[in-house]
Amino acid sequence: MSVRKIEAVDFFYLSMPEVTTEGDGSQDALLVRVAAGGFIGWGECEASPLVSIAAFVCPMSHGACRPVGASVLGQPLETPEDIQRIASQIELDSMDLLQAPHTWSGVEIALWDLLGKVRSEPVWKILGYDESFRKLPYASQLFGETPALTFQQAFEARRQNFRAVKFGWGPIGRGELKTDLEHFEAAREGLGKDVLLMVDVGQIFGDDVEAAAARLPLLEQIGAVWLEEPFHTSALEAYAPLSRRSKLKLAGGEGAHNFHMARHLIDYGRVGYIQVDCGRIGGIGPAKRVADYAVSRGVTFVNHTFTSHLALSASLQPYAGLRSHEICEYPFAPKPLARHITSNHIERDSEGYVAAPDGPGLGITIDSEAARRYLVEVEIKAKGNVLFRSSDQI
Amino acid sequence: MSVRKIEAVDFFYLSMPEVTTEGDGSQDALLVRVAAGGFIGWGECEASPLVSIAAFVCPMSHGACRPVGASVLGQPLETPEDIQRIASQIELDSMDLLQAPHTWSGVEIALWDLLGKVRSEPVWKILGYDESFRKLPYASQLFGETPALTFQQAFEARRQNFRAVKFGWGPIGRGELKTDLEHFEAAREGLGKDVLLMVDVGQIFGDDVEAAAARLPLLEQIGAVWLEEPFHTSALEAYAPLSRRSKLKLAGGEGAHNFHMARHLIDYGRVGYIQVDCGRIGGIGPAKRVADYAVSRGVTFVNHTFTSHLALSASLQPYAGLRSHEICEYPFAPKPLARHITSNHIERDSEGYVAAPDGPGLGITIDSEAARRYLVEVEIKAKGNVLFRSSDQI
Repeated sequence: MSVRKIEAVDFFYLSMPEVTTEGDGSQDALLVRVAAGGFIGWGECEASPLVSIAAFVCPMSHGACRPVGASVLGQPLETPEDIQRIASQIELDSMDLLQAPHTWSGVEIALWDLLGKVRSEPVWKILGYDESFRKLPYASQLFGETPALTFQQAFEARRQNFRAVKFGWGPIGRGELKTDLEHFEAAREGLGKDVLLMVDVGQIFGDDVEAAAARLPLLEQIGAVWLEEPFHTSALEAYAPLSRRSKLKLAGGEGAHNFHMARHLIDYGRVGYIQVDCGRIGGIGPAKRVADYAVSRGVTFVNHTFTSHLALSASLQPYAGLRSHEICEYPFAPKPLARHITSNHIERDSEGYVAAPDGPGLGITIDSEAARRYLVEVEIKAKGNVLFRSSDQI
Repeated sequence: MSVRKIEAVDFFYLSMPEVTTEGDGSQDALLVRVAAGGFIGWGECEASPLVSIAAFVCPMSHGACRPVGASVLGQPLETPEDIQRIASQIELDSMDLLQAPHTWSGVEIALWDLLGKVRSEPVWKILGYDESFRKLPYASQLFGETPALTFQQAFEARRQNFRAVKFGWGPIGRGELKTDLEHFEAAREGLGKDVLLMVDVGQIFGDDVEAAAARLPLLEQIGAVWLEEPFHTSALEAYAPLSRRSKLKLAGGEGAHNFHMARHLIDYGRVGYIQVDCGRIGGIGPAKRVADYAVSRGVTFVNHTFTSHLALSASLQPYAGLRSHEICEYPFAPKPLARHITSNHIERDSEGYVAAPDGPGLGITIDSEAARRYLVEVEIKAKGNVLFRSSDQI
């Protein structure tokens, strides 16, 4: 029998017709399709589609700055170890290509999806889990422009029976402390006493421990579950002292683009929740490694997902089998694109829970026709060659 | 008087006609030219030119994933604080664009060069130094393919009166331990007893402490100054235990793409030499911050430079005034491109030392005609717009 090899990797840059400056990551998407030995797998990169495509096709600069594609195309794909081997190759051969992990993430996810289809098994089973435990999804959304709007949104999420809600970004940290506190209070009032409330401030305090600490008393008073991303992903020296002063746990990690960065947030930053975006950290493999490490350190793993249900499925796999790591980020009101591009979705059950699908691979089907409606035309030429040209053969 | 604003940022992707897989970063270059109020500044990005250009011009994905250009063009440029303000803006607005620091680095360097020309002062003076102390350059080169070739190269560097030489990459860690040791010995024999010898293994051991530790006894025996980059830039948990077992100091940091990462190599990785590439870490500002931090922690700052003398000048500025931080990386045998694209060079004085130039800004002049000979044609189109098209108006 001939060895199955990666024959093609295709990127599809999708976008809403209009993209605004709001912090809503569902306004565009970069789908990745891989083909090997008659099978197809789908993945999704998180973050700039154009730059991520460029990192796959760019000319080589030198031996440690090769395009991601050079380590992927033509490689054998029979086992999870094959995926790991490609990852290690990219770590060396694209060492100086900063965007590489963001590009590789979507490809890696697609390789797992393909491998699952070959084996007719869900990815979480290939990862070694016997069971996919259901998760409590929190509705993830942005703070309103005013406390009154935040209240309304909170009230609406509660009306839709979410048992956990996260508010993030928006005006927090950009104006007066008083306004931030009003937003926090409005969120709690809109949700009522029993709904879990998480707060995400999107790195707004840089590495300013005192500014973040000024928000702690009220967050503790309203019973927030966590304070997320008070600082720059790498500002471990700010995370640690805030964590020591805080009764509520800190959360962070979505910016980690390798296993080590997530580990450092646990070891040095002392977060209580480690949040991993499979579309950035290098895919499902390193995310699983973070989940294992979190378990060993008594820290809770949470997915970071703000895009499609393909990305959501990918992000659930690494901790599907961890029963006590129960919370899950669930995009509450994504842009139509993020909903339309998959034919099926991970819906809440009658008790409000979700779970990683039982279908082969990621268990999510791409709606090609819908995806085509959002396709962005791209062409990249260099050194006399067309390095990339978008195709509508989704 | 009207405020000086950044009117234009132009990128020039230069490349040798042929690019090979050797670990030689001087095979291509990304020059950056900024224009503001009748002044011109030049900078250089290190790493993939195409991807770095894409990160400047890409369509916005959302509020925290904007192109680097959005935070730069039109901004006032009167003081160093203006540069810092743009850097902070990019940190928030391009948070999810992984390549952003690599792109911004070259722009930032060009802004310092421009500011120096406005003030008729070298950048190191604007950074607060009264004097630019001379540095001891080490010839930076790759290990030979065989120990015999390594010996020859070492002998040649000594013949050229280099008092310090670094060997790196090549076959080390890719074959048997015995071969590595033969290379180390050949390097020392070729250099003789008195020449400083540094060894760089280019992250080859990933996070495998034992593999790296197996090389320590001989490196100690031949009196190496440091062992550089045994591990992945982020593998702090491998650096620290190796450092504790090692009599010679560890060096690392060229992969740091922000101040925090360099700081963590000092605080958690316990390196004795912190190596900073201004073309990656976000430019001269964060590199100076690392230099200050290194001083406070008794660690020695060293530049990382493997490209042109424009990049070399930029990399010398952050520690020009630190008398006791004396070692400096100096590309020994770069490709013709790296030598040709500047009209003047930082040459060794009669005693073999080099220094950051005294001229305004970076003190280096671009040779436009020479640069044009290496120009790579690039075109990037998306969403119906030409986002970038290379120009030969260098």
